Amino acid sequence: MPLTMNIPKVSLPRVVVIGAGFAGLKLARNLNTKHYQLVLIDKNNFHTFQPLLYQVASSGLEPDSIAYPIRKTLQGKPNTYYRLAEVENINFEKTEVVTNIGVVQYDHLVIATGATNNFFGNKNLEENAAPMKSLIDALDLRSKILGNFEKALNTTDLEERDRLMNFVIVGAGPTGVELSGALAELKNKILPKDYPDLDLRQMKINLVEAAPNVLAAMSEESSVKAEKYLKDLGVSIWKDTFVKEFKDNVISTSGETFYSTNLIWAAGVMGELPRGIDAKIIGRGNRILINEYCALQNDPKVFVLGDVGLIHSELYPNGLPMLGSVAMQQGDYLAHSFNRIAKNKKVKPFVYSDKGTMATIGRNQAVVELGKFKFQGVLAWFVWMFVHLMLLVGFRNRAVVFINWAWNYIKFNNGSRVIVRPYKKKG
Amino acid sequence: MPLTMNIPKVSLPRVVVIGAGFAGLKLARNLNTKHYQLVLIDKNNFHTFQPLLYQVASSGLEPDSIAYPIRKTLQGKPNTYYRLAEVENINFEKTEVVTNIGVVQYDHLVIATGATNNFFGNKNLEENAAPMKSLIDALDLRSKILGNFEKALNTTDLEERDRLMNFVIVGAGPTGVELSGALAELKNKILPKDYPDLDLRQMKINLVEAAPNVLAAMSEESSVKAEKYLKDLGVSIWKDTFVKEFKDNVISTSGETFYSTNLIWAAGVMGELPRGIDAKIIGRGNRILINEYCALQNDPKVFVLGDVGLIHSELYPNGLPMLGSVAMQQGDYLAHSFNRIAKNKKVKPFVYSDKGTMATIGRNQAVVELGKFKFQGVLAWFVWMFVHLMLLVGFRNRAVVFINWAWNYIKFNNGSRVIVRPYKKKG
Repeated sequence: MPLTMNIPKVSLPRVVVIGAGFAGLKLARNLNTKHYQLVLIDKNNFHTFQPLLYQVASSGLEPDSIAYPIRKTLQGKPNTYYRLAEVENINFEKTEVVTNIGVVQYDHLVIATGATNNFFGNKNLEENAAPMKSLIDALDLRSKILGNFEKALNTTDLEERDRLMNFVIVGAGPTGVELSGALAELKNKILPKDYPDLDLRQMKINLVEAAPNVLAAMSEESSVKAEKYLKDLGVSIWKDTFVKEFKDNVISTSGETFYSTNLIWAAGVMGELPRGIDAKIIGRGNRILINEYCALQNDPKVFVLGDVGLIHSELYPNGLPMLGSVAMQQGDYLAHSFNRIAKNKKVKPFVYSDKGTMATIGRNQAVVELGKFKFQGVLAWFVWMFVHLMLLVGFRNRAVVFINWAWNYIKFNNGSRVIVRPYKKKG
Repeated sequence: MPLTMNIPKVSLPRVVVIGAGFAGLKLARNLNTKHYQLVLIDKNNFHTFQPLLYQVASSGLEPDSIAYPIRKTLQGKPNTYYRLAEVENINFEKTEVVTNIGVVQYDHLVIATGATNNFFGNKNLEENAAPMKSLIDALDLRSKILGNFEKALNTTDLEERDRLMNFVIVGAGPTGVELSGALAELKNKILPKDYPDLDLRQMKINLVEAAPNVLAAMSEESSVKAEKYLKDLGVSIWKDTFVKEFKDNVISTSGETFYSTNLIWAAGVMGELPRGIDAKIIGRGNRILINEYCALQNDPKVFVLGDVGLIHSELYPNGLPMLGSVAMQQGDYLAHSFNRIAKNKKVKPFVYSDKGTMATIGRNQAVVELGKFKFQGVLAWFVWMFVHLMLLVGFRNRAVVFINWAWNYIKFNNGSRVIVRPYKKKG
C-alpha cells in the first residue's frame, strides 16, 4: 500500500496544486486559505523566474537571484502546505495524486506543471542537445560554455578548437534570440579580456530557425529590427532551416552543416503532462483542453493553468499562447474564482488581458510591443529591464539583479563566470 | 608520451603556481610579469573566499558572491596564463608539473594547494561525514540541510524525524563555531516561519570538540564568551569529546551517543599535498617544511605558501598557524621577493605580522582579538562584518554580500534557501 502524504485532515475543502511556476504561485498566494486547505507540490523548493534563465546560462546573473524559495512566499499563510515531491500519477477516479513521497487526496486539483522542451519526436536531438528550461539546465549550460573555452585554450588541434567555440542555438523565439545576443556580448566585450591568448574571432554564434523570420510571434517591424541587432552583434542567422541530427560533433540541418560541440535547444516547448491524463483531452502542443473556467469539461474538480492548459472557449476558439502573462493571469483568475465560490458568488469565464511582448537582444537593444505601441532600441531596453525587475519576486532578488545589471552596464564585465557544478575527477 | 600544456615558450623565467587560494592569488596579482611568465593552475575556475563558506551552507549567501572568477582577477596582466587543471604529480628532477591537461615545465614552482579535511586516519568518518572545505561542499551541505526538513515534514516516524533534525558539528574552531551559530539562528528565526507545521524545538545543534574549550586558538576570554553566546542561541556543547564512528545514523563519541543523519566535519585540516613530495620534507599536519624564504631547503626553485607550507626558521621555530592572513602575507612576500630578484636586489626572510583573529557567532555576537585588544558583542560583530566585506575580492561581490547581510539583519530572513544541485529522479 502506498504511503499517504503527511497533511492534516481538516473540514475545509482541499485544493492540491501541482507546480509553483507563474500560474501555481499566483494561485497559491491569492487563494483565501481561510476557506480552503492548500497543498502545493513542486519538484524544486524554489520558484524559477524563467525569462532570465538565459542570463544565468550566459554568466550574467547568479542562480539564486532568479530563484525564490517557495516556503518564503507562503510564510504566514494559514492552512497551507508545501511539499517537495515529484508527481508520479494522477488517479482522477479516486481523486488522488500519487507522488514519490506519498499519495494525497484532493477536493479540487490544479495542474500547473508548465512546459518542457519539444523535440518534435527527434530522439537523437532529445538525447544530445543542451536544454534550457530549468535553473539546473542553465547552470549546466554555463559550466559547459566556460569549460569549453578552457579546453579550447589548451588544445593544439585547430579543428577541435573551432568546434568548441562554435555555438548553434536552435529556435529564434525570445529565448533563442536573447541567449544568442547574450553570447554575442560575451564574445565581443568580456571573453577577449578573460582569454587574451585565444582568438575570439573564432567563436561563432549561429541561430537556426525553421520559420522564415526571427521572433515569429511578434510583428514584422520587431522581427526585422531584432534580426538587424543580432547581425550587428555578429550572430549568424539561418532561417527556413531545421535541425535534423547532432552526432559526433556534426549538426546536420536542412541546409548548412555545423561542426560544433554545442547544440542549444530553444526551439519549442510543449505541455509537461503528468501521467494519468486521458489522451482524448490532450490537444495540440501536448496541452490539456480546458473550458472557459480553466477546468476540464467532464471533471469540474480539475483545473489546468498556464502552458500545460489549452483553453477552448467562445472567446478563445484557438486557445492562448504559452506565455508567462497568460499563466499569471490564470493563476490570479482561479484564486478569485475559488474565493468567490467560497462566498457563494458566481464565477465568470477567464478573460485574458494582453500586456504585450518584448525581447532584449543586447546592450541598449530591445524590441517591445505594448498593444498598438511598438518601439525598439534604448527606450525599449530600459522598459524591458524595468518590467523584468518588477516581475521578479522579492526585494532582495530585485536589488541583487539591479546591482548586477548596473555593474555590467558600467564595466562590461559579468560577475558570475563561476563553474559551481560538482567537481568531477578525470576518470 | 604525455601532452604538453599549451603555453608559449618565451625568454622570461616561468613561475608555475599551483592553487588560486589566498596565497596563490596574492602572488599572481603582485608578481611583476614583465620579468616573469606566470602560469597559474587551479582545479576550479574561481577563487573561493573560504571564511564565508559557512554562510553558503546555512543559506545566508549565494555561492557566486563568495567566488571570484580567476580570469577576471588576471585581466590585462601580461605574460599570464591561467589553466583549469588538476595536478597529478610533480617531477622535481625534471622540473615539471604533470596535470590532467598536460605537462608544464617550470623555472620556479610555487605550491599553494591549501588544506583539506583531516580525519586523523579514521576512514569511517572520512567516508560518511559531510565536509565543508569547498564551495561545492557548502552547496551540497545546504541542499542536504534543506532537504532534511522537507523529509522531516513528511515522515510519521518520530525517531526518523529527530534524526533528520539533529545536527552534529565536529570541531569548535572558527568554522564549527560559526556554522553552529548560523544553524541556531536558522532554527530560532527563519525555519519556524518556513515550516509552521514542524516543531522546530526538535531541531538540535550539537557542537563536539575534543579540546577542553571552544575556539582553543583564541584567548580564554574569547573562548568563554563564544561558549556563552552559543549556549544562549541553544547550541549544545560537548567538550573533551572526540567522535569515533558514524554508522547507520548513529554517531559514537568518547562520551555521548547521537542519533542523527548529519555529521558535519569542521574538526581539523591538514596540508593538501600534491603527489611527488619526498616524505622526508613533510612535517606535522601534512605540511611541507620550508625555510625563512618560504622555499624548500634543498631545492630553492620550489616555494610553498599558505596552509600547505610549514615554515621552520630562526624567527618561527614552531611554524605558523594555518590562517588566511599567513597565506596572504606569504603570497605578497613571495611576489615581492621575485620582483626584487628580477632587479638584482637582495631578498629578506619572511616576517609575519599578526593581524589578530575573530569569529562571529550570531546577530550582534562576535569575538575579536587584535593584538592586546580583545572585545566581544555588537562592536566586535560590526568589526567582523567590515573586515570580511573588505577582504572579499571585487566590488560586485561586496555589494551583493552587503545587501544580503543588511536584508537579513532587518528582516530576519535569509534569501538563498534554494536547492540548486542537479535534480535526481527517484531511482
